[in-house]
Amino acid sequence: MLYLDANATEVPRPAALAAAAAAMACLGNPSSVHAAGRAARRLREDAREAIARRFGAAAADTVLTAGGTEANTLALRGLSAGRRILAGATEHAAVRAIPHEPVPVLPDGTLDLKALEAMLSGAPPAMVAAMAANNETGVLHPIAAIALLCRAHGALLHVDAVQAAGRVAIPEGWDSLAISGHKLGGPMGAGALLLRPGLHPEPLTPGGGQERGRRGGTEPLPALVGMAAAVPEPDEALRLGALRDAIESGLPEGVIIAGRDAPRLPNTTCLVLPGLSAERQVMVLDQMGVCVSAGAACSSGKLGQSHVLAAMGLEAGIRVSLPWNATEDCAARFLDAYRGMVVRLRR
Amino acid sequence: MLYLDANATEVPRPAALAAAAAAMACLGNPSSVHAAGRAARRLREDAREAIARRFGAAAADTVLTAGGTEANTLALRGLSAGRRILAGATEHAAVRAIPHEPVPVLPDGTLDLKALEAMLSGAPPAMVAAMAANNETGVLHPIAAIALLCRAHGALLHVDAVQAAGRVAIPEGWDSLAISGHKLGGPMGAGALLLRPGLHPEPLTPGGGQERGRRGGTEPLPALVGMAAAVPEPDEALRLGALRDAIESGLPEGVIIAGRDAPRLPNTTCLVLPGLSAERQVMVLDQMGVCVSAGAACSSGKLGQSHVLAAMGLEAGIRVSLPWNATEDCAARFLDAYRGMVVRLRR
Repeated sequence: MLYLDANATEVPRPAALAAAAAAMACLGNPSSVHAAGRAARRLREDAREAIARRFGAAAADTVLTAGGTEANTLALRGLSAGRRILAGATEHAAVRAIPHEPVPVLPDGTLDLKALEAMLSGAPPAMVAAMAANNETGVLHPIAAIALLCRAHGALLHVDAVQAAGRVAIPEGWDSLAISGHKLGGPMGAGALLLRPGLHPEPLTPGGGQERGRRGGTEPLPALVGMAAAVPEPDEALRLGALRDAIESGLPEGVIIAGRDAPRLPNTTCLVLPGLSAERQVMVLDQMGVCVSAGAACSSGKLGQSHVLAAMGLEAGIRVSLPWNATEDCAARFLDAYRGMVVRLRR
Repeated sequence: MLYLDANATEVPRPAALAAAAAAMACLGNPSSVHAAGRAARRLREDAREAIARRFGAAAADTVLTAGGTEANTLALRGLSAGRRILAGATEHAAVRAIPHEPVPVLPDGTLDLKALEAMLSGAPPAMVAAMAANNETGVLHPIAAIALLCRAHGALLHVDAVQAAGRVAIPEGWDSLAISGHKLGGPMGAGALLLRPGLHPEPLTPGGGQERGRRGGTEPLPALVGMAAAVPEPDEALRLGALRDAIESGLPEGVIIAGRDAPRLPNTTCLVLPGLSAERQVMVLDQMGVCVSAGAACSSGKLGQSHVLAAMGLEAGIRVSLPWNATEDCAARFLDAYRGMVVRLRR
């Protein structure tokens, strides 16, 4: 099997698996006061500090969650009281599921800054949601410019960094930032919401007062410890970017690369073949042992037009997202399979 | 170390650790359509079916969550539209954090059925929250009788079975039932909300439409698989009940056992020593290498009067909750330490 769907879930990193397995065997609830609880609490706080340091927040301003969707929802529901929510047209379903006013994107997939400025000007205070990197195309929004606009208009900026984290540097200027453990190469079931000092979201689950009252419930300790240990190798982004470029330069005639001219994640390419159904492409590639996706994985079994590509004026395409352990051989095998798939579907 | 705080978190069961570790190494997002996704989906659905079958719901009516607090909150926030919420005075903080009208308990810790009936009679439709077993005392509420009252008055019944699940049979008649994986002996970070057919809670995190729209976000696959594999050994309850009884019959003079005459969990005893601070008891026992708790673990580091014991008219006490692998030696060692602690604190 050739797994090229890292943006759905990254290949687990050995260090993350080992750390999570060790934490899983650990005895004690991190909220307990006795020796077993203190040992569990140390694991939790070490994970929190590693995540906070790595993504640029204070440990006290880092809320540990059970995933990226929870982190995004906690920010948008918990911090937006009295504010309109403006969200990019290509945001992830986790963000688009919250009632909002959509901000258009340009044909290259980046947020339309003029449109955002017009929506922010002279209007009631807003909270803007912008993803650092798009999950389907890898396109990077101009977060620094968006942050400046938000600051100028008294808006809060929430950045969904689920796909960007660990793959590219994330610009500063956000008020809240969501990450997901399994997109970093940790186990499923962990995430974090990093906050600017002074922000205190209303909890989705008040529960027993954990996480300074911002997220009740016993923390998912093994997955959190695994998330903290899921660190890219040196030069991983450069290496994956070169493989992605090799794929893009070996494609047959007529393939459109979504967002080709925009800054993008190094591991992602989104390929549109006008007139050929993306679902059928995915299915034929799957039969050939190649795992890629049409759109996001999130909606169980759902296949259909991608809101991301539609917002860019494109037909549906397939997403190829290289995992951290992809090799030159993977790129070559993908190109072979892709060419075979195109021949087969065009017959 | 003598770990006697299973109600804070159960000792991980080897079968659960092995199953979770295997799932953690598995590749693929359970929502992806390709081969890797289908393999992950099979793990998720096997876990769902095992949990559903074991606790008496259909798989389609079983929402997988990241924990018991999330499951309790999803029920109480997601199913209560247009209803008052009535909750027992000794419910867990995860339930008490939701705005509600408290229902008193009798001195033995069981729900006051007469008071509940009076609150339900001739009033607007309600949702009643009652825990199957109390986390601090182990006292079992009369769920079957509560279910009959709810049915007679058109109320929904939510049962928090976080502590009861895996330890005692849970009566039928509920509309929703919350369980937690790490209280069963699985990893932290998994739970489930089981529903009567036809009930569809509003999601806390709508996200990508997972769990039939009832819980968005990629499922915490390893912890869920571990939860499903966390099954008690035959006669475990009988064995633990005998150890608990041995502890209770070996106590020094003057100890009050909270809820002694009520039906209780087999693994739990809550010991009140009038005039002696429960916090100091826990600290002295901790210095002796014995892990027990004063009240619930949930509120980080919080120590103080227990709302559970206060509702029963008692002073604060310590909770001894035997893990699944407790032995006769554990009971004997606890009694030795307890007697030593009493002597030391009474000096």
